[in-house]
Amino acid sequence: MRIADRHWRTIWPSTDGAAVEVIDQRVLPHRFQIRRLADAATAAAAIADMTVRGAPLIGVTAAYGLALQARHQADDAALRSAARQLKAARPTAVNLAWAVDRTLARLLQAEPADRAATAWQLAAELADADVATNQAIGRHGLALLRDLKPAAGSRLNILTHCNAGWLATVDVGTALAPIYAAAAAGIDLHVWVDETRPRNQGASLTAFELREQGIPCTVIADNAGGHLMQHRQVDAVIVGCDRVTARGDVCNKIGTYLKALAAWDNRVPFWVAMPLSTLDMSLQDGLAEVPIESRSAREVTHLVGRDAQGQMTEVQLVPDGTPAANPAFDVTPARLVRALITERGVVPATPEGIQALEPWR
Amino acid sequence: MRIADRHWRTIWPSTDGAAVEVIDQRVLPHRFQIRRLADAATAAAAIADMTVRGAPLIGVTAAYGLALQARHQADDAALRSAARQLKAARPTAVNLAWAVDRTLARLLQAEPADRAATAWQLAAELADADVATNQAIGRHGLALLRDLKPAAGSRLNILTHCNAGWLATVDVGTALAPIYAAAAAGIDLHVWVDETRPRNQGASLTAFELREQGIPCTVIADNAGGHLMQHRQVDAVIVGCDRVTARGDVCNKIGTYLKALAAWDNRVPFWVAMPLSTLDMSLQDGLAEVPIESRSAREVTHLVGRDAQGQMTEVQLVPDGTPAANPAFDVTPARLVRALITERGVVPATPEGIQALEPWR
Repeated sequence: MRIADRHWRTIWPSTDGAAVEVIDQRVLPHRFQIRRLADAATAAAAIADMTVRGAPLIGVTAAYGLALQARHQADDAALRSAARQLKAARPTAVNLAWAVDRTLARLLQAEPADRAATAWQLAAELADADVATNQAIGRHGLALLRDLKPAAGSRLNILTHCNAGWLATVDVGTALAPIYAAAAAGIDLHVWVDETRPRNQGASLTAFELREQGIPCTVIADNAGGHLMQHRQVDAVIVGCDRVTARGDVCNKIGTYLKALAAWDNRVPFWVAMPLSTLDMSLQDGLAEVPIESRSAREVTHLVGRDAQGQMTEVQLVPDGTPAANPAFDVTPARLVRALITERGVVPATPEGIQALEPWR
Repeated sequence: MRIADRHWRTIWPSTDGAAVEVIDQRVLPHRFQIRRLADAATAAAAIADMTVRGAPLIGVTAAYGLALQARHQADDAALRSAARQLKAARPTAVNLAWAVDRTLARLLQAEPADRAATAWQLAAELADADVATNQAIGRHGLALLRDLKPAAGSRLNILTHCNAGWLATVDVGTALAPIYAAAAAGIDLHVWVDETRPRNQGASLTAFELREQGIPCTVIADNAGGHLMQHRQVDAVIVGCDRVTARGDVCNKIGTYLKALAAWDNRVPFWVAMPLSTLDMSLQDGLAEVPIESRSAREVTHLVGRDAQGQMTEVQLVPDGTPAANPAFDVTPARLVRALITERGVVPATPEGIQALEPWR
């Protein structure tokens, strides 16, 4: 996608072929900074500290992490150890484990001498597959948006939570893919962007990428979406996901469940953009079974922004010593989800809907 | 209530009798600063800029504002003009209009020479009445909490949104009054404090006052409450209100509706602490009829906190030029409210429940 009229992906091999480079998402929108990941440990750290984030992107980053490991040391033990480290970087998104397990299995079948080249190739294929998947999600989502399109002269208003745009993927995005497709198709639309506390991925990343793409958007506090839906100012909600169970429960960024409740209460379609890599067919009950990552209290008690001098400054929001809790994801029960938008079409968030997508990967 | 072991109210006459003084709530919890309000225009400005906030407190501040006007110039035209200015400072809370109208009507009946003294007396009575009201809300709410009290050894977990504590009133608080009463009665409890974006009254004010009172609390992002309710970590939600209609629709801080939906979905009691001064018997349909204040976009796009040097610093959260919307309140339909806790007892949020409270003031 575009940043200042140049096309970027979020991750790419370095020109010397010895590393991958990524856009450092922790300092956007205030700085545009590239970070070089030269080994598996650095890749795992970049996933954990959210230099890269978004379920699809962390999967691809982890695959490149294994490839970097294979460049240095490609025996079974070294690869297995790197795989463990990469998977532990973030526990909730299933894409991460999926990408690592899939890449590792293929590498262990290859001759050690071939593993470095094979791993690099697999990671590149995964990156390209992510882009193709997201383009397909965009096409299927566009059809839904076309059906919604309000009377001539009025704008389509979409609400999204967190960032499931191109920055959360290799390119194109998941939840934002239908929006980009609709804009390209000439549909007049506007996006309500939940700021998405505590890390503000909406206010920083979603607002940044929508504005670079020239799509009108308005940032709102996470508290405001229900009110906007009550007043018919939201035509649809589209979010991404970090893990979806076999019955359609959706694990996504904390606060998604509250928006799903409001959409249900106001009969606003609540759609989840779901690459099949996000399905976890081993789980049924999302609430009981999906592990929810708890992140640092400091992400709630402190916040980093740009001060009047243009410096990135951290400020404290609470009285000294105040405890905070920071669950990073929640689970939206399938009953609140109008449909799942996948690369193979739109299906209901039901066991039958998901079964119909078989083979899942 | 206590700050560092000294008892404070949020508003009091200055020792020279020529002004009122208030705690400047814009700089808490990082600074404790007193602001002097010497005339009606300054009082109106303090309400508008949220030096004082909270429906009960802005009502009392406005009554003192009229008294300050009466000290300077007490003819009908001057009083009516000051009343208009004070009521316009914030449009949503009904207490403000109620306190101003009630005080003005009494003043216009008095001889001009007596008006200054009468107005001062009326404002002081209103302040004392607020405290008595809140103490009664505390007693009635305590009875509800006693019924909830979980098995021995486990702690009662209450979630609250925004600040409806003593800082939102003259003293004691509304939503927090039952919590203070329960703590005083020896009930072991813990409060989940919604940070309450965009102005963070939870993270700053509620956390501050609970900690000064020695009540365990944990600050959370507004996004987290639904997840905590799904996991049975919330025994009850108690919030305040800015206006309640004759059928029980509750207007309160933006985001309240989302918490009410989650409480409903998880069968968690959702209680609204409602002084009768907050009832607006002239309205039925809260969604259609309550005017919702829109505040500055900058409250969403920028945030003030304490930096590492201890200075209050404003930081920007969004890309340059990003629009933001900032509706300050939302309406929770009566069907989602388990009960209203008033100074005259606990009633259902129904036309009948509210009718039973007659006379309302």
